[in-house]
Amino acid sequence: MSAQLDLDSILEFTINLALEAGEMIRSGQQKRFSSESSNEDEKANSVDLVTEVDKAVEAFITKKIKETYPDHQFIGEETFNGQKITDEPTWIVDPIDGTTNFIHGFPMVATSIGLAVGGVPVIGVIYNPFLDQLYSAAKGKGAYLNRKTKLPITGKSKPLQSLGHALIAVEYGSARSAPQLPSKVKTFQTLAGSPDLGGKMCHSLRSMGSAALNIATVASGGLDMYWEVGCWAWDVCAGICILQEAGGAMFGPKTSSLSGEIDGDLLTGRKYLAVRGIAPSSDETSLQVQQRFAREFYDTTDDIDP
Amino acid sequence: MSAQLDLDSILEFTINLALEAGEMIRSGQQKRFSSESSNEDEKANSVDLVTEVDKAVEAFITKKIKETYPDHQFIGEETFNGQKITDEPTWIVDPIDGTTNFIHGFPMVATSIGLAVGGVPVIGVIYNPFLDQLYSAAKGKGAYLNRKTKLPITGKSKPLQSLGHALIAVEYGSARSAPQLPSKVKTFQTLAGSPDLGGKMCHSLRSMGSAALNIATVASGGLDMYWEVGCWAWDVCAGICILQEAGGAMFGPKTSSLSGEIDGDLLTGRKYLAVRGIAPSSDETSLQVQQRFAREFYDTTDDIDP
Repeated sequence: MSAQLDLDSILEFTINLALEAGEMIRSGQQKRFSSESSNEDEKANSVDLVTEVDKAVEAFITKKIKETYPDHQFIGEETFNGQKITDEPTWIVDPIDGTTNFIHGFPMVATSIGLAVGGVPVIGVIYNPFLDQLYSAAKGKGAYLNRKTKLPITGKSKPLQSLGHALIAVEYGSARSAPQLPSKVKTFQTLAGSPDLGGKMCHSLRSMGSAALNIATVASGGLDMYWEVGCWAWDVCAGICILQEAGGAMFGPKTSSLSGEIDGDLLTGRKYLAVRGIAPSSDETSLQVQQRFAREFYDTTDDIDP
Repeated sequence: MSAQLDLDSILEFTINLALEAGEMIRSGQQKRFSSESSNEDEKANSVDLVTEVDKAVEAFITKKIKETYPDHQFIGEETFNGQKITDEPTWIVDPIDGTTNFIHGFPMVATSIGLAVGGVPVIGVIYNPFLDQLYSAAKGKGAYLNRKTKLPITGKSKPLQSLGHALIAVEYGSARSAPQLPSKVKTFQTLAGSPDLGGKMCHSLRSMGSAALNIATVASGGLDMYWEVGCWAWDVCAGICILQEAGGAMFGPKTSSLSGEIDGDLLTGRKYLAVRGIAPSSDETSLQVQQRFAREFYDTTDDIDP
C-alpha cells in the first residue's frame, strides 16, 4: 500500500504542517507567558493554557490531514480513544511532545507527525519550534536535519567500541513509585557506574524530556542510544522513520526478539531501545552490531512494565 | 574596582569574542567529522582533534583578551595551573563546556567567558554555537538571550509552589565510584520519587551535560534548579553573572550559609545549587523564598565531595 503513496509530496505536506504547528506552539507559549505575568491565578491559568494549546495544535493538524488525505486514519495523543493501528495509512501524531518542558519553558519541545502504512512508519517529521530544529524522513529517501544536513551528521555511521563509550538518553517518566522508579534508577546507576560498582561506566547519561527529540538525536548520531519504558505510538512513530532512514534501529521490549523489524506491535509495545547507525565490522553487519549492543543493554536492565 | 570598568564596552567585546570562539568550535567539529569519515584510526584521531580544538579556542580567547585588556588576569580550563582568584579583574574561561557532548555531536556545547572583579562575576557570556543560543549579562544591566529577550523569558519571575513543582537539572559527572555516584543517584531518586518512596516527586529531572547551559537555562526560567558537585570556576563564572542578573541565586556548599552572597570562595567551592528567580510572597522576599527551597533541597541530599 505504501508503494501507492507519493511519499515525496506527503513529506513536503508534513514538513509544512509541522512548521505551521510549531508556529502555533511558539505563539501559544508567548501568549501563556504574557498572561502569567499579568494574572494572579497563575497556576490554574497556566495549566489551562497548556491544554488549550495542545488541543488546538492537534485539531489544526487533524483538520489539515483530513482535508488533504480524507481516506487516511488518524491517531492523536489528545483524542486517543483506544483505536487500533490497522494496515491502512494512519497518521500518528503528538501535537506537543515534551509537555512538561513546554509548561516550564524548557526548550526541548517538539511536534511529532508520523504516517504508518501496514504498521510501518513511512513518513516522520519532528520539529522543535523553540530551537528551530526540523528532523524529517520518508521511507527509502534518507533522513535530514533542517532539510539540508543528511543524517547522521557525521556523514557515515561511526563505530561504537563498547557500552562504556556510549552517550545514552534515559528518562524518569511518570511512573514514580515501586517497582518502576527504583528499577529505572538502578539501571541508571549500572549504566553510569564504574566497574567496581558493577557498572558499565558509559560516557554519560542525558535526559531531555522529549521522546521524539531523544530519538531524533540518536538518528543524528549525537546520542548512541535511548532507552524508554512507557512511550505511546505517537511518541515514537515519526522518530522510528527518521531513525531507520539514518541507519539506526529501534528495538522493542526486552522479552521479544531483537530482530529490528518494525510492525504495529512495535508501535504499541510501550518499551523501546533506539540504537544509532553503527559502522559494520569485519564479521558483523551494522544490524548485528546494533543487536549485540541491544542484547548487552537489556542484560543490564530489569524488564520494567510501564 | 568594578566601577572603574566600562562594563558596556567589555560586554560588547565579550559577546563578539564568544561568537568568534563559537565559529571555531563549529568549524572544528565539521573538520573532525569529515576526518573521522575518512580515517581508519577513528578513536585516537577523534580525541586528538577534540583536544586540539579545545586548546586552539582557549589560545584564541586568551590572545584577544591579552591584546585588549593587558592588565587583566586570566584563568582557563586548558591552561589552569592552580592560580588563585585574586581581587584583580580576572577572566575565567571554559573554551568548550560540555566536552563529552562535543565528542559525541550532542548539541549542548557552549563557550563560557566570565570576568570576575573582587571575586564577583561582573560579565558573563555563554554561547552555544550548534543551536546559536547566546546568553549574556553585565552586572546591573540585566541578562539576555540572543541580545533581545530579557531573562527570565516569562518577563517577570514566576512563583514556585513546592519542590514537587520543580524541573531540576542534575548531572552524573566524572566521579563514578562510591561514595559519590550512589549518593548522587540516591538523591535523584529522592527528587523524582513519589511520597510513598519518601520522595519529593518533582516534575522531572533533566541532564544536558553542560554546566554553563544548565545555569543559563535556570536563568531563563526553563529550569527551576540545577544541582552540581564537582564544577570548577570556569564552569560557573559566566553563568553566575547571567543567573543573578535574571533574578536567580547561586548557592554554595550545603555546609556553608545560604546567604546567596557571591565571592571568590563561591567560585572555587566546587558545589552549587542554582535557583531561578522566584516571585516574592506576601511574607518572603524573592531571596528568602530561594533560600527556603535551597534549604529544603539540601535537606534531601548527602554532602558529597567531588
